[in-house]
Amino acid sequence: MPNQTRVIIENVHPQLDGGLHPISCVVNEIILVEADVLADGHDVIAAQLHVKHEGSKKWLEVRMRPMENDCWSAEFKVEKQGFYEYKIVGWVDHALNWQHGIQRKIEAGQKVTSELLEGVEYLEEILKKCAEEEKSYLNHLTPLFKNESHYDQAILEAVSEKLHAIFTKYPNKFLYNESAILKAYCDREKARFSTWYEFFPRSASSIEGKHGTFKDCEALLPRVAKMGFDTLYFPPIHPIGEVNRKGKNNTTAALDGDVGSCWGIGSKDGGHKSIHRQLGSVDDFKQLVSKAKELGIEIAMDFALQAAPDHPWVKEHPQWFKWRPDGTVQYAENPPKKYQDILPIYFESSDWKNLWDEMLSIALYWIEECDIQVFRVDNPHTKPFYFWGWLIAEVKKKYPNVLFLSEAFTRPKIMQQLAKQGFTQSYTYFTWRNTKHELMEYLNELTQTDQRYFFRPNFWPNTPDINPWALQGNNESVYLQKYFLAATLSSNTGIYGPVFEYLQGAALPGREEYLDSEKFQIRHWDWNQENKLTTLIAKINHIRKEHKALQQTNNIQFLSIDNDQLLAYYKYDQNKESEIIAVVSLDPYYSQKGFLQLPLGEMGIQVGHQVKVHDLITHSSYLWNNEWNFVELHPVLPFHLFKIQK
Amino acid sequence: MPNQTRVIIENVHPQLDGGLHPISCVVNEIILVEADVLADGHDVIAAQLHVKHEGSKKWLEVRMRPMENDCWSAEFKVEKQGFYEYKIVGWVDHALNWQHGIQRKIEAGQKVTSELLEGVEYLEEILKKCAEEEKSYLNHLTPLFKNESHYDQAILEAVSEKLHAIFTKYPNKFLYNESAILKAYCDREKARFSTWYEFFPRSASSIEGKHGTFKDCEALLPRVAKMGFDTLYFPPIHPIGEVNRKGKNNTTAALDGDVGSCWGIGSKDGGHKSIHRQLGSVDDFKQLVSKAKELGIEIAMDFALQAAPDHPWVKEHPQWFKWRPDGTVQYAENPPKKYQDILPIYFESSDWKNLWDEMLSIALYWIEECDIQVFRVDNPHTKPFYFWGWLIAEVKKKYPNVLFLSEAFTRPKIMQQLAKQGFTQSYTYFTWRNTKHELMEYLNELTQTDQRYFFRPNFWPNTPDINPWALQGNNESVYLQKYFLAATLSSNTGIYGPVFEYLQGAALPGREEYLDSEKFQIRHWDWNQENKLTTLIAKINHIRKEHKALQQTNNIQFLSIDNDQLLAYYKYDQNKESEIIAVVSLDPYYSQKGFLQLPLGEMGIQVGHQVKVHDLITHSSYLWNNEWNFVELHPVLPFHLFKIQK
Repeated sequence: MPNQTRVIIENVHPQLDGGLHPISCVVNEIILVEADVLADGHDVIAAQLHVKHEGSKKWLEVRMRPMENDCWSAEFKVEKQGFYEYKIVGWVDHALNWQHGIQRKIEAGQKVTSELLEGVEYLEEILKKCAEEEKSYLNHLTPLFKNESHYDQAILEAVSEKLHAIFTKYPNKFLYNESAILKAYCDREKARFSTWYEFFPRSASSIEGKHGTFKDCEALLPRVAKMGFDTLYFPPIHPIGEVNRKGKNNTTAALDGDVGSCWGIGSKDGGHKSIHRQLGSVDDFKQLVSKAKELGIEIAMDFALQAAPDHPWVKEHPQWFKWRPDGTVQYAENPPKKYQDILPIYFESSDWKNLWDEMLSIALYWIEECDIQVFRVDNPHTKPFYFWGWLIAEVKKKYPNVLFLSEAFTRPKIMQQLAKQGFTQSYTYFTWRNTKHELMEYLNELTQTDQRYFFRPNFWPNTPDINPWALQGNNESVYLQKYFLAATLSSNTGIYGPVFEYLQGAALPGREEYLDSEKFQIRHWDWNQENKLTTLIAKINHIRKEHKALQQTNNIQFLSIDNDQLLAYYKYDQNKESEIIAVVSLDPYYSQKGFLQLPLGEMGIQVGHQVKVHDLITHSSYLWNNEWNFVELHPVLPFHLFKIQK
Repeated sequence: MPNQTRVIIENVHPQLDGGLHPISCVVNEIILVEADVLADGHDVIAAQLHVKHEGSKKWLEVRMRPMENDCWSAEFKVEKQGFYEYKIVGWVDHALNWQHGIQRKIEAGQKVTSELLEGVEYLEEILKKCAEEEKSYLNHLTPLFKNESHYDQAILEAVSEKLHAIFTKYPNKFLYNESAILKAYCDREKARFSTWYEFFPRSASSIEGKHGTFKDCEALLPRVAKMGFDTLYFPPIHPIGEVNRKGKNNTTAALDGDVGSCWGIGSKDGGHKSIHRQLGSVDDFKQLVSKAKELGIEIAMDFALQAAPDHPWVKEHPQWFKWRPDGTVQYAENPPKKYQDILPIYFESSDWKNLWDEMLSIALYWIEECDIQVFRVDNPHTKPFYFWGWLIAEVKKKYPNVLFLSEAFTRPKIMQQLAKQGFTQSYTYFTWRNTKHELMEYLNELTQTDQRYFFRPNFWPNTPDINPWALQGNNESVYLQKYFLAATLSSNTGIYGPVFEYLQGAALPGREEYLDSEKFQIRHWDWNQENKLTTLIAKINHIRKEHKALQQTNNIQFLSIDNDQLLAYYKYDQNKESEIIAVVSLDPYYSQKGFLQLPLGEMGIQVGHQVKVHDLITHSSYLWNNEWNFVELHPVLPFHLFKIQK
């Protein structure tokens, strides 16, 4: 317990759960670190941020700046993937304290002969370790400080900037203190900026009534690329169970020819490491992944840890399922709902270590065999949190490029915990946020609280599971708004394909589910069809690629605009080289107008100076001379996406 | 890393700096603990708060209640002084989950024969450990669950409250998880409720021009007791340095007969374990402490770790001081201010361990020799934080009744850190908070943030060092307001004696310091004089003793009142047996009136019901029939102190 150090370091931020979880970041991001650093008395103190990559032995030392209320700050830039470590070091700086004291005494007209003598001690200490040039300067000072006949010159040198710089460069961290070591995990940039497209491979055929194949998917790649998507996600491509297979529209009795839910994984044809025969071969899949890559598209696989009743595991590893006293296996249910075609994995099994290993081997198989780098994880919230923490860490140790999207639409703390356990991105409540207040509140929660350090949102207006009320009316303006909001509020975004582009919002009556859902049947699409929606989605996606402000989510500021149907926000990249103002109307029926307040302070623009804004969608430019400026939007094109030109 | 548990426990609150510091409490306090407890999936989970006193081996287990957003809560009561440990334990409760599931299935009209069979497993598990009475009940259930012919009775029993209670009483914490262990430090009740009076013993004589003695102090004890004070604090009573002694009004050259500052401790007569000869002997002091105790008063000693230039330490332990190159010792200074009569202790000395031991021995000496239980620590913020953490812990290990008041008027984080290191109470910025907004903001900071768990304020309107601007006008109404605010906002309060009661606010010109300060000279007081201020101070102090709502600081709620010169607040003890509403006018010149909103919800009173309030100062009662009620206060008696009578 006895510890002579005089410095206290507290409240290091960012910090999650006392350092239990790393903060998340991506390559080239700059992390602002703050901490309270204090000492007893009135002595001058100093603090440094120490940072190193897990692969390095040497700490990089960054001097911290004192801010208000004993808080100090400094930044570091992450440049490599993997873990970074950071900590704060603080000390009472006797040399700087001496200089500060002598300055105040001189200002108060006191004689400092004795203080100059004391200063010699600091010079001599630095002489032991400094560079030649500094040595000669310090050697020149020593006799001045010792000899009263040079008093006037001595005090000038004593308080000089030059000496201050030397003291700062060669600190003596006598009795220093340091914080606990905290961690940051640095991902590749795609963790933060990605544009997803989802379709069902079995609906990819251009011929109606035919089961789609990987070859058909290959033919669709140029379309996906042209629309500006960089991640193509497929629902599971594994053999589909035949026992208790579901029929169209989730009926329990499949009819002859019904294809079943592709999430009912596993049959006599194999399990999670096999491919559904009608889609093609492993080689077809490899070729698809490779062709996609050439077009700048990564294929994201579904990672759904559950089994159809005829999955090979059920016989090979019966201990991985929960057996009931009547000799049957417990199928998935959330009483009173039943999922008869799916058996959940029994994670409380005493054979859990082998089970975990098998699950890991599935991910590694697709990574190693088919060059898969992105997984969309199905229902991760029904498997133990620590299992994910372990699995993701094991994968990323070997393959740091691999990204995991958490498909957990559940309670907030559970979604957040999955992110803390290592999920790269997460689906969100965006799908159900419609009003201005709802959107602002949700974005502020994601970006202005500690969630910004671990929870990376991915905004989807729809998914095969969710056909939200707002889209069910098939109002084109709503679809335009929703895509615009998803793609400009969040840097990670995605849509579930043709049902969205072609306004196919028909629903099961009274439910937020699609009618004739592709989860249970093949649908046929005229993939060549282009419309306003496909055109604008492509346009927005290409604008996202060109503007760094749209490639991150956290630097957002909502702007005052005097109309509850108009939402406006200012976004910028970290060094403000790219600045965007988005304005969107939430009214799909009528024109809406209002006055928008420019964030002049944040933009670094003086009141009275002109601002030129250029709409990246319409290519119109406007000269704004005032802080408040008029905007009007019509449902036909319910948004502006302004680039700020200074 | 692999860990099969499914439960996550996070955000345990209260918790200071990740458990680094204990939270503070006093005997009989009830601590509310909250935590996020969550598991994957939809299973029913359960959580317990586990608590034990450091002296006990057995954890007390308290079932937690689920609140909103995956947060759980429970309380524990601290009954003994010393450290308590607490932690949270959580698990997936299979038996409760089974019961919950069966209930939902029955409600959905499903047949649960197989589920009943599963239930037998939970019954058998509990049969191994439960009491006889429960055994016979469970033995009666087993055949019902197994035999389909008793189905109707079986399902009634399966979902019964009785079975639920048994499952709750005998949980199977399979794969449970638990939080880190956190600590609470429990003090005697005086830590939270104390009423201080300060005077200079050397000014205690009834004869003008005579140096006061402990005998004179003894004669004043009945006066102190009658005024309702329970803690009598004396500035240092040790020999006063003769070298560089300060003169009246802080002049550097003491004249013959000048008594010097009693904080310039140590002379040829001794140091911190000696008594200033003119005050009397150690035996006189012991007798004073003992007589005070008989009247319910504890004597608080000043603990000022610094030395006059002629303190015996300077010769005996020169290494405990910082020597300058010119052979002199560095006196205390805060450039350009100089304290020539005081040498600071050199805590960076390499002999620091002996130094610390000597400091500890001073406290132990007065505790053991003279039964001192309370120390007011002078300028603790100019000595290392960890030194205090160590010293206070060492003292309290042996003498848990000892209390330490931190006299640190400095930056907020520094004052807070001293509290975290173990100071029982702290002086505050109350001395400079005058307006309604300032007072509300400060109280909310102290009581509605985590400070409530470690920083115990002691409100003083004045001290020998601080004669605040507001008191310098000698306006009686201001003095009344200030004492009322100090004593009803904070349960720990104190005044620096006769200068306050007798409105002696004369100041050094342009400074918040007393003219003819007792720090540097003896003053003569007519201690028999009574006035409105002494009468009302006594009255308020006696009301504090009778009303538990005023014996704590944290349960406060400011009330709406439509006048910026009127401040109103509702205070209550933890079980709301005592409820107070205070209203005070901040205007010393004119009457102020307004409408006050009763906190009906918090008071548990329905709108439309009558409330009787009784003014404890004037003994007037009022019947209030409305939520908003009229009040008017005049500078002559600028407050109401209402007891709520239901």
